[in-house]
Amino acid sequence: MAILFCSDSDPPDAWREVLVAAFPRMPFRVWPDPGRPEDIRYALVWRQPHGLLARLPNLKAVLVLGAGVDSVLDDPQIPDGVPVLRLVEAGMAAPMAEYALLGVLAFQRGLHTYLDRQHAVEWKREPWSPAADWPVGVMGLGVIGAAVARRLAQSGYPVAGWVREDRRIEAVEVFAGRERLGAFLARSRVVVNVLPLTPATRGILDAQAFACMPRGSYVINIGRGAHVADEDLVAALDAGRLGGAMLDVFREEPLPQSHAFWRHPKIVVTPHAAAPTVLEAAATQIVDNIARLERGEPPLGLVDRQRGY
Amino acid sequence: MAILFCSDSDPPDAWREVLVAAFPRMPFRVWPDPGRPEDIRYALVWRQPHGLLARLPNLKAVLVLGAGVDSVLDDPQIPDGVPVLRLVEAGMAAPMAEYALLGVLAFQRGLHTYLDRQHAVEWKREPWSPAADWPVGVMGLGVIGAAVARRLAQSGYPVAGWVREDRRIEAVEVFAGRERLGAFLARSRVVVNVLPLTPATRGILDAQAFACMPRGSYVINIGRGAHVADEDLVAALDAGRLGGAMLDVFREEPLPQSHAFWRHPKIVVTPHAAAPTVLEAAATQIVDNIARLERGEPPLGLVDRQRGY
Repeated sequence: MAILFCSDSDPPDAWREVLVAAFPRMPFRVWPDPGRPEDIRYALVWRQPHGLLARLPNLKAVLVLGAGVDSVLDDPQIPDGVPVLRLVEAGMAAPMAEYALLGVLAFQRGLHTYLDRQHAVEWKREPWSPAADWPVGVMGLGVIGAAVARRLAQSGYPVAGWVREDRRIEAVEVFAGRERLGAFLARSRVVVNVLPLTPATRGILDAQAFACMPRGSYVINIGRGAHVADEDLVAALDAGRLGGAMLDVFREEPLPQSHAFWRHPKIVVTPHAAAPTVLEAAATQIVDNIARLERGEPPLGLVDRQRGY
Repeated sequence: MAILFCSDSDPPDAWREVLVAAFPRMPFRVWPDPGRPEDIRYALVWRQPHGLLARLPNLKAVLVLGAGVDSVLDDPQIPDGVPVLRLVEAGMAAPMAEYALLGVLAFQRGLHTYLDRQHAVEWKREPWSPAADWPVGVMGLGVIGAAVARRLAQSGYPVAGWVREDRRIEAVEVFAGRERLGAFLARSRVVVNVLPLTPATRGILDAQAFACMPRGSYVINIGRGAHVADEDLVAALDAGRLGGAMLDVFREEPLPQSHAFWRHPKIVVTPHAAAPTVLEAAATQIVDNIARLERGEPPLGLVDRQRGY
């Protein structure tokens, strides 16, 4: 029995080192050289070629090299009954929360306005308004979203969260369900998106959503690119409906050179850098999950394929 | 007896309203129309014309409309024996700490690098390193400096402070005295300056100081412009000795259009906007101080003119 590693972006060497040390009797194979398909018991994957997993008859689990599993579930041929396991947090919450805080602070303090004025050699102050006057809305309150919400609340921002099913988080006002989305958006001067991408959330940040937000408010997207309706976002910014956006994820990555986001004066583009997958924490979690499966225990991070996360 | 208001930047109307309400029997006069000089008992000043205070024979106190008093003490003719009182904090600590945190976060997360890359339409990630790997040094640990240091420490940065005389602040490593300045700078990946401007601190951020800092480190100046040797800063940035600077204060303000800082690719210029004087808190403090003096009690915020703060 063997492990198959298949990712279009993670370098295999560091992973090999950790997994061979933990499971010395399991060969570590790297796609496109899987050896005999029958040998593969565990597949560590990120954006795997569709159909690959279906050709592994003895596959016991799919271990996703990330927290968002949309790019893995895209494959319609993942065998039923094989559990798909995702990373739960794995060191991503802290950098995500940090990125969100940087974005919110930059908008609150008018950094982008000052950078524009510096470019124009213009000395002009903006009035300061305290964090208490900047209600922030966090879409998605999973492990990462909750960490983002907590960090912003600790920094003095009035924080609300929007979720599918009601839950309680200290110092965060929770809006649950699609019917409360409008009210949630209407109170948020900055919206931070950390949702998983599912059929229910695809394109959720569209013209209708932007119309609910207060005039001149801001969007930070660290969820997935496909949560945003790109053309609606540009139109809302151009109309002054939104004041700015900070985007780390895109429908196509790398963001194509010709995409309007690159050159839009009110959009900040970062190259999917809000949170690196922190190899050490991620590897520890994956090793632990394989060990659980080998011992016959239930694994962590089991994905509900219907729900999509 | 009357109050004289003299500032080149604060609008008098809001101050008049507060002070007339508090002291209805004291006329509120605005320079250049002081009425009879013998009437003036309290002078509320910011960058007053030199010699003005010396012409007020019954002056009981000078109340500075800011926390830094260098622009007031510049006047060599302030009568001896008239106490100079400065604002202590007055709501400035929170916005100052916020600005410093924004600056440190932006440097830690490579925001300026990403903005440059966006301009060049380049998709390229920087490695992430956690706050724990970003030691920050705060120069000056008065009320504002201590608030800045605390906020950064709460955000996970290893914080040290440099001060004239040794003191203790929780979670902050204190370096006291000129002889420890080199060691303080050598451990600081970002230096935040919040010092008062005095003969002892003028030009303290010069080539010698930058040479002590780790290669590629950063400077945030929210103290006074004259703390920085402008040409040394540009030279250190151009040589790659420093990685960037975020400057809110300048030797001449507004920063002259021809100044090199405006166009330097590694300098962010903000227009003395790190902390507005929060009128309400400041006015409350000044009203309280006049009331104390009227009752014969010791005032708050007494400046040591020798020390300069």
